[in-house]
Amino acid sequence: MINILLSGANGKMGQAVTRVAAASDHVKISCGFDINTTQNADFPVYNQLSQVTEPVDVIIDFSHPSMLDHILDYAAANQIPAVICTTGLSTDQLSRIEFESKKIPLFFSANMSLGVNLLIDLVCRAAKILENNFDIEIIEKHHNQKIDAPSGTALAIANALSDTVSYPAEYVYDRHSVRKKRGKHEIGIHAVRGGTIVGEHEVLFAGTDEVIEIKHSAASKEVFAVGAVRAALFLTQQSAPGLFSMKDLIEAQ
Amino acid sequence: MINILLSGANGKMGQAVTRVAAASDHVKISCGFDINTTQNADFPVYNQLSQVTEPVDVIIDFSHPSMLDHILDYAAANQIPAVICTTGLSTDQLSRIEFESKKIPLFFSANMSLGVNLLIDLVCRAAKILENNFDIEIIEKHHNQKIDAPSGTALAIANALSDTVSYPAEYVYDRHSVRKKRGKHEIGIHAVRGGTIVGEHEVLFAGTDEVIEIKHSAASKEVFAVGAVRAALFLTQQSAPGLFSMKDLIEAQ
Amino acid sequence: MINILLSGANGKMGQAVTRVAAASDHVKISCGFDINTTQNADFPVYNQLSQVTEPVDVIIDFSHPSMLDHILDYAAANQIPAVICTTGLSTDQLSRIEFESKKIPLFFSANMSLGVNLLIDLVCRAAKILENNFDIEIIEKHHNQKIDAPSGTALAIANALSDTVSYPAEYVYDRHSVRKKRGKHEIGIHAVRGGTIVGEHEVLFAGTDEVIEIKHSAASKEVFAVGAVRAALFLTQQSAPGLFSMKDLIEAQ
Amino acid sequence: MINILLSGANGKMGQAVTRVAAASDHVKISCGFDINTTQNADFPVYNQLSQVTEPVDVIIDFSHPSMLDHILDYAAANQIPAVICTTGLSTDQLSRIEFESKKIPLFFSANMSLGVNLLIDLVCRAAKILENNFDIEIIEKHHNQKIDAPSGTALAIANALSDTVSYPAEYVYDRHSVRKKRGKHEIGIHAVRGGTIVGEHEVLFAGTDEVIEIKHSAASKEVFAVGAVRAALFLTQQSAPGLFSMKDLIEAQ
Repeated sequence: MINILLSGANGKMGQAVTRVAAASDHVKISCGFDINTTQNADFPVYNQLSQVTEPVDVIIDFSHPSMLDHILDYAAANQIPAVICTTGLSTDQLSRIEFESKKIPLFFSANMSLGVNLLIDLVCRAAKILENNFDIEIIEKHHNQKIDAPSGTALAIANALSDTVSYPAEYVYDRHSVRKKRGKHEIGIHAVRGGTIVGEHEVLFAGTDEVIEIKHSAASKEVFAVGAVRAALFLTQQSAPGLFSMKDLIEAQ
Repeated sequence: MINILLSGANGKMGQAVTRVAAASDHVKISCGFDINTTQNADFPVYNQLSQVTEPVDVIIDFSHPSMLDHILDYAAANQIPAVICTTGLSTDQLSRIEFESKKIPLFFSANMSLGVNLLIDLVCRAAKILENNFDIEIIEKHHNQKIDAPSGTALAIANALSDTVSYPAEYVYDRHSVRKKRGKHEIGIHAVRGGTIVGEHEVLFAGTDEVIEIKHSAASKEVFAVGAVRAALFLTQQSAPGLFSMKDLIEAQ
Repeated sequence: MINILLSGANGKMGQAVTRVAAASDHVKISCGFDINTTQNADFPVYNQLSQVTEPVDVIIDFSHPSMLDHILDYAAANQIPAVICTTGLSTDQLSRIEFESKKIPLFFSANMSLGVNLLIDLVCRAAKILENNFDIEIIEKHHNQKIDAPSGTALAIANALSDTVSYPAEYVYDRHSVRKKRGKHEIGIHAVRGGTIVGEHEVLFAGTDEVIEIKHSAASKEVFAVGAVRAALFLTQQSAPGLFSMKDLIEAQ
Repeated sequence: MINILLSGANGKMGQAVTRVAAASDHVKISCGFDINTTQNADFPVYNQLSQVTEPVDVIIDFSHPSMLDHILDYAAANQIPAVICTTGLSTDQLSRIEFESKKIPLFFSANMSLGVNLLIDLVCRAAKILENNFDIEIIEKHHNQKIDAPSGTALAIANALSDTVSYPAEYVYDRHSVRKKRGKHEIGIHAVRGGTIVGEHEVLFAGTDEVIEIKHSAASKEVFAVGAVRAALFLTQQSAPGLFSMKDLIEAQ
């Protein structure tokens, strides 16, 4: 049983990690760290890392960029691997993560969802095998309040595909204004918006009389908690320091 | 058993109608009309309508615009209803169809597929009921050789929806260039292109935590033959002259 | 602006109705009724209906079967229409609803989701038009903790379809044990179970080279709140007493 | 440019290979072998392999089991790799293929579709990564004349998944008769039948608030011709004798 120190234990994502860990046979949260020390589950919550006396095999951090130095200091001093899940880190902070990863295993990914990262892995695999005979199109769907289009994840998928295929991919967002056949190097990207859709990403490979579709749908941000716990388990299996990501986790399987 | 005179019997669509009729318990093709009089099925094929001696309850015409006058003359003279399935008719020819429909029941539709017309019927029904709480988006998929986008059918769907909702609909083809929330009156229209996809049209209604999707997929042009036979049956049930379309057929059910 | 008295205001569904009403331009909640009188929104909550002094055009009841008599007494005495959304009512209670509906407009539906009821409406419409040429199959997906299969909604859909088609429908749940072609009167019903899927229902109409799919996906129970508010609006438009359901609401559009 | 000897050139699949090769920049058919020597394309068709004088880099065989010995004799004698696409081979014939593959590169796969084999590859990859947190379900759709259920391909997918996961998988075909939660080791297999659907296979991975779907749809048997040409190219790249399959082709990418 792996013992987790959960940083940001009383935040929304911290509570999601608590639920995911409670349902797992492989991990338990031994203690929490948070400004708010209310105990909401069966582990104590501290507002000072120096107060921790429980066993800790790995840290999951869903707190706040301002806590990063604290966390990394504590992790490095005690040789504890850490999964950093905060978003909005500065370039300096990312550099520090890289620097500390020379001493301890650290995990950081732009998107902590296992599913989305697996989707990227699978579509690149498909693209490599299908590339000369199949056309690639990406359809993403999100709620009507989202202001950017396409989604960052759709672009990450397109970029990963673009790096995989041997031809120079051309992103196409709109076909209604021109009358011409589809170019062989196009990757169509379609941003559907409506209602409260949390997030769907679908990649279509269309060939001669056959189509392969690979699709990921998220129903809530709970998926990031699942990914974080998975990353924590992965990190405790590393025998050497290093900076790991969801890509490494997936490719290691 | 309804007797059909099949005009254009030896063309591609004529042969498709022959297959559909052969599988039906309600209709049979009593004779064919074609420049090419080869007998490919169990009915004779004539190149003059005056040669017809078989019983005829209704005509299905999949020949050529140049044959229209012949067909209409024959139909009117013998008081036989006719389903006109040729495409590319001139304005004058459409006027003549309307004129003759004062004397006999005639059937003409821009798209002879029962499925596509039903799709339009269903999405308009859905739009009426959902309109203030749901966002509408249309996704169509076609093969990579198609030069127009969106498809004529996608536009027909959008126009039917636009006529149904009480607000002025705004068609949106591309969201990648702007950073803003979805407008309440938008109808997103997305043209996916790839491989040899014959034709798919999907309408999405996205509301608060629920989504309704209505989708039609065609695998071949056989669907127009199914629609034509269905229209022929419908026409024989009309007691008075008139110009009928797939919309009438569907609404009569 | 329609004034709603919200019974069960502090329950989970009551709070959902509060959110839906707050987002609407057509309704407002003037007051609440609940054992727990905490005021969580901008309206007072009473634990006695006699305390209500606010204007009330319609009642939405998401409380508990034990409150039904109270609600109906109050509604009848004050000639206020009511939407009854509690589940688990006894036969006697259903009889009383029917009895009171002779005096005031009442609304009661087995499933308060507008989307699911619209799905049923649309698939029956499709079945009527397609019946002799298309095969019908139902696929439903739910979370892995659900103990019944198929879902009550899937059965409601199948029953509605069965009532619509002219042939005696035969429900088929398993094909793996027999080697035979699909019978023409079969309605295949497939219960997919996995993860935390809230609820999806899809009806497939498969014909000669064309397929129509109609699908509803729910992401939360919020959809029942949307349906309740919609029913409340509908009820205030009724000029005479009567017992109304989602079917009436949809058919009135 | 790779030169192909096409065995069974005038059969349905031979003609499909001819179309696929004509559209390719990498292969050409230098000559055909068939009982029927009609020349339908720009290459000669022989009814004796001894008549072949054209250059041949690889053989594609879509003829008949009874031709297998002829083909293998010719291939072995001339040291030409061969893709064997005939179905219904006896155990003895499969043994001979294995025996000859010690001398020349041979390719044989139960299913020649690149897409279906890629689907199997991708779902096994997904299963390895997701296995403890996601439930697996398979949905296959075929036309209403198919007598076996589930499809052979659905079973091949289930077996490949079963070999991949660390737990003993339990295939479940019907849930309607029992009231219980989904077991963690279940793989649900659902056989949808309707219309003229050529073949769809979809694998669903459902986890906590996320779902991954991987789907293959075939619109015709043309996909086997695409796979055969791809296999021919792959075979000419092998430097040593051996027995290769679609699995090898995909894993080599």
